[in-house]
Amino acid sequence: MGKTAKIKKLKKKIKKLQARLTAAQTHTHAVAPLAPKSFPDLPVIAGARFSAVKAGVKYADRLDVMLAELQPGTTIAGVFTRSATRSAPVLDCQAKLGSDPAEGAAILVNAGNSNAFTGAAGDRSVEAITTEVAKALSVPKNRVYTASTGVIGVPLPHDRILSRIDALKGTLTPEGLEQAAQAIRTTDTFAKGAKAEVKIGDRTVQIAGIAKGSGMIAPDMATMLVFIFTDAKIAQDDLQSMLSDLTESSFNSITVDSDTSTSDTLLLAATGASGVEVKPDHQAFRDALHGVMLDLAHQVVRDGEGATKFVEVRVTGAKSDADARTHALAIANSPLVKTAIAGEDPNWGRVVMAIGKSGAYAERDKLSIRFGEVLVAEKGWVSPEYREQDGARYMKQDELIISVDLDVGSGASTVWTCDLTHGYVQINADYRS
Amino acid sequence: MGKTAKIKKLKKKIKKLQARLTAAQTHTHAVAPLAPKSFPDLPVIAGARFSAVKAGVKYADRLDVMLAELQPGTTIAGVFTRSATRSAPVLDCQAKLGSDPAEGAAILVNAGNSNAFTGAAGDRSVEAITTEVAKALSVPKNRVYTASTGVIGVPLPHDRILSRIDALKGTLTPEGLEQAAQAIRTTDTFAKGAKAEVKIGDRTVQIAGIAKGSGMIAPDMATMLVFIFTDAKIAQDDLQSMLSDLTESSFNSITVDSDTSTSDTLLLAATGASGVEVKPDHQAFRDALHGVMLDLAHQVVRDGEGATKFVEVRVTGAKSDADARTHALAIANSPLVKTAIAGEDPNWGRVVMAIGKSGAYAERDKLSIRFGEVLVAEKGWVSPEYREQDGARYMKQDELIISVDLDVGSGASTVWTCDLTHGYVQINADYRS
Repeated sequence: MGKTAKIKKLKKKIKKLQARLTAAQTHTHAVAPLAPKSFPDLPVIAGARFSAVKAGVKYADRLDVMLAELQPGTTIAGVFTRSATRSAPVLDCQAKLGSDPAEGAAILVNAGNSNAFTGAAGDRSVEAITTEVAKALSVPKNRVYTASTGVIGVPLPHDRILSRIDALKGTLTPEGLEQAAQAIRTTDTFAKGAKAEVKIGDRTVQIAGIAKGSGMIAPDMATMLVFIFTDAKIAQDDLQSMLSDLTESSFNSITVDSDTSTSDTLLLAATGASGVEVKPDHQAFRDALHGVMLDLAHQVVRDGEGATKFVEVRVTGAKSDADARTHALAIANSPLVKTAIAGEDPNWGRVVMAIGKSGAYAERDKLSIRFGEVLVAEKGWVSPEYREQDGARYMKQDELIISVDLDVGSGASTVWTCDLTHGYVQINADYRS
Repeated sequence: MGKTAKIKKLKKKIKKLQARLTAAQTHTHAVAPLAPKSFPDLPVIAGARFSAVKAGVKYADRLDVMLAELQPGTTIAGVFTRSATRSAPVLDCQAKLGSDPAEGAAILVNAGNSNAFTGAAGDRSVEAITTEVAKALSVPKNRVYTASTGVIGVPLPHDRILSRIDALKGTLTPEGLEQAAQAIRTTDTFAKGAKAEVKIGDRTVQIAGIAKGSGMIAPDMATMLVFIFTDAKIAQDDLQSMLSDLTESSFNSITVDSDTSTSDTLLLAATGASGVEVKPDHQAFRDALHGVMLDLAHQVVRDGEGATKFVEVRVTGAKSDADARTHALAIANSPLVKTAIAGEDPNWGRVVMAIGKSGAYAERDKLSIRFGEVLVAEKGWVSPEYREQDGARYMKQDELIISVDLDVGSGASTVWTCDLTHGYVQINADYRS
């Protein structure tokens, strides 16, 4: 056989092997199996306009930069990664929170490059982008927020973004939020959106949000970005306290793999264009906002790398809420629990192990564990009623609830996570192969 | 590239793919790829005799119970899991530490059933075993230590062990330690042993130890059991303080997946039969003992579930040793770092992420990261000297050193771990498939 024919043959063999390897290792899906059926029909948020363009920051021929223009008077609250190595855009956003809303605001987000761990060049990129957006939209520079997601440690080619600012400005539209959700995806397998409507007296305010996350960021980590908009009128401090409060039981209660991005950013903007004033203790509005946040948070978990199961971990009867949270996160982050779930194995022993190692208070002989409605363990032992086939049948579902009652107090906490599968390892280990 | 070189490259790729396919289809490796070449030739420890039998606790037709008989005067120190849900044998051992050594002692260990989370039945099993061993060897019951490893939550069929105690007693021999190492394996892929010899004046004392761990315990968690013996004469309190001190920088500095067993047990017995007295500040003895502990600890990591890389994480320049340890464990436990290593990806961005999320102090623009000798990042950015191919070449090695200098103090810590591979998911998720 000639060498050219030999090369052709070997390449064919490689292709075949790669296909078999993919088949042998469960694998990732074009769209995550836990994805919602469709993107929601987001409402227009009066006072806000959106656009998205293809800037080629890293990806070719896809939307990768979004712009939000927010009318004068819009208040903005934010919650960010607590990482000690956070990115230049995060540091810039944090410094700008609470600035005077009188002259409007803007948010520009790019996918493909996170501008994280890029040294002084990172700050220069943020400076260049915020300066140009401020000029284009006639808003103060300290009211232009940016977020970046994608590869880490590579200088952001911000010229590519600057050259598209006119196009972004020219295509701003109140209907542009869904396109914006598309533009902030990295390897998210689906775009994420959520909405709510709240009746306040005889008027209505709208809430709409978009998110990206947990789809792998080539070749780095799963940054979560969330942008939520409402036409309610909410004072700056009230908006911030509401957002911070509601983050604990939504975005801070999900975990895919216990790793924290250097770029996580959550911004909430209230345009006030509805003219309806909302106080921070308005329960219906808080519930609606929390609903949007939780919906987006769950969508992030549903797009968890390699996820095939959506898991709610409920801990009750702990000495305190903080203890309950420690136990819940220990269970949700345990690689042994997560792989058991992937294998549809009702392995309550690993749940016991996770409680034991968490560091929070527990008494072995008091705790009880349920998989769904199935009582599996109690009084320091497997429950006498428990039948393995009941646990095994339950674990076959896509959506699982693991409940632990510690019976030592009244502390409670719920967190959400997904399983740990071959798909996770494949996405994160095999990227460069 | 010439066609001959191309063919060579493609053939290499095929070989790699075939190995991965085999690993994905069959199950992991008969013996871990990082295993030592052979079991060491362990010395006789005067004053100690060992035996092992097939009791069929769970496994059929293999050694699964070991017995150690220790002469009168033997002092015993122990370190145990800190789990809040620890097993009955662990609780029993802890209660017995420091009991009078005058009349000798014994250690009985079984594989196949961990007697963990077995309620009152667990205590009864421990009681039955220790009573019978005490009678058979004429040692006090409070000097009989037990350890169990294997399935969780299933009552230990202790009658199978009781019926073999005569056989265990009848086959005790000073040369039996290697057989004991075989008997405590669960799905460890190799038996683990280590030894040292220390000259003290013109005399010599011997140290020998065995361990099991990180090979999966069907179908539960990777318990670590370690038993170390020396013929040195060491007072009870001195032995305990020495063991506790040296555990921090050996067994407590390894991590496979951040999960903690309910059964982890480390016992150190000093028979005194050499007649050589050792004080706790004797540096050469401490070094030798630490060497044996570190050797066994590293072997546990080398047998980590699915491990293909042995990784040392060195953190220096932290504000304190505790901070350094927090950073080192955050890196070593990060699923994203561990999968990158599995994929031979010099992904220093994930190391930055792990430092950022650890919670310990760091300054983004001061830290530097090295893969082996290769400086990859410094001054808040990728090093100007760094070439991706240098990092990629380094990552192909089986044994890796990741060094981080934080440049904010003089705290230091080193921990050891392995990568996170398809093998790990396969062992832990696919067990019941």
